[in-house]
Amino acid sequence: MTKINQASPYVEKSNVEKSSDVVWHQQSVTTEQKSSLKGHKAVLLWYTGLSGSGKSTVANAVEQKLLARGCHSYLLDGDNVRHGLNNDLGFTDEDRIENIRRISEVAKLFVDAGLLVSTAFISPFQKDRDQARALLKDALFLEVFIDTPLAVCESRDPKGLYKKARAGEIANFTGISSVYESPTDAEIHVKTESLSIEECAELVVAALIEKQIIKA
Amino acid sequence: MTKINQASPYVEKSNVEKSSDVVWHQQSVTTEQKSSLKGHKAVLLWYTGLSGSGKSTVANAVEQKLLARGCHSYLLDGDNVRHGLNNDLGFTDEDRIENIRRISEVAKLFVDAGLLVSTAFISPFQKDRDQARALLKDALFLEVFIDTPLAVCESRDPKGLYKKARAGEIANFTGISSVYESPTDAEIHVKTESLSIEECAELVVAALIEKQIIKA
Repeated sequence: MTKINQASPYVEKSNVEKSSDVVWHQQSVTTEQKSSLKGHKAVLLWYTGLSGSGKSTVANAVEQKLLARGCHSYLLDGDNVRHGLNNDLGFTDEDRIENIRRISEVAKLFVDAGLLVSTAFISPFQKDRDQARALLKDALFLEVFIDTPLAVCESRDPKGLYKKARAGEIANFTGISSVYESPTDAEIHVKTESLSIEECAELVVAALIEKQIIKA
Repeated sequence: MTKINQASPYVEKSNVEKSSDVVWHQQSVTTEQKSSLKGHKAVLLWYTGLSGSGKSTVANAVEQKLLARGCHSYLLDGDNVRHGLNNDLGFTDEDRIENIRRISEVAKLFVDAGLLVSTAFISPFQKDRDQARALLKDALFLEVFIDTPLAVCESRDPKGLYKKARAGEIANFTGISSVYESPTDAEIHVKTESLSIEECAELVVAALIEKQIIKA
């Protein structure tokens, strides 16, 4: 298995516990050791896009492809985060910021564990996405823009949210009554309109190979 | 590689997104697929013990051994949790409960990702440990009691905390001015006093083999 070296997003811990008992040394597993075991780099794929754009769908399809390649990946999305870790948070500005902060911190832990971790949240503001990027420090952070026209998202409306937003039943709905700041420098830009899910996922995987995160 | 089946701590997601666009199916990677890839079961090892008992030290030694066996493990401890995800929390009762809740939720995500995840926090109250256990639902939860006499912990005092607590400079310090409720039914009980770190770690690994979580 090819060894891929990588720095940890955390400062490396001291290998020796400051203890009066010299027998009790502490030997931490380094990120390098973990990368060596897994045979791919650890990275955070930060999917962003409108509600209904296909973030989770594409991310899941990419997960399937990574699994088939023996990569260790994990997807953080509304299903496992909003209903668990962040179930105490609502949709105020403050809570929205805290939501993104926690997701970023958890993603950082997964990167530290050596995984290919993906997050799939609308994350409409560039400032928030930049904050997540900054938190990961020198670790790999790739913004994946799932670029689907609003009209297409609205025609899908899988959860009936656009309909409610148009009826004024949901305030601050991204794309309708709140802005979505399209990424201008996303590392991976997926224009979904004329592509199948399969093609979208292949595009992401090809980018991971090109960036030498996974092997060809 | 032996396939080890395992249920997810999350309810399995529907494989089909409720979308008006039938082309956009959602195919989630199941916990079973992840377990199959990793060749070991996913489990949460919840280390508990006094400050200075050796929780992190033993947990790190176990991590090294798991790594050598090709297992995918990760340790959540003060270094990567208190300074990151939970850096907004203090030491009030409310914050302490929230601290444990978030740690449990993050551990649950790691179990869902198919890892052997360990947490190393004093977690002095049985109620809190039981809550973490309940949160994991049917997923594997093993309480690991790092059982070191108070006098030994105090003589080590790696961070000088016992000294400060005895001087009254730290309120509610576990073992001194706040109770530590020793587990009575811990799945793994490590009496460290007469053992080396190596022996403590071997004991935990042997338990994982005996419980068929990892292969012999």
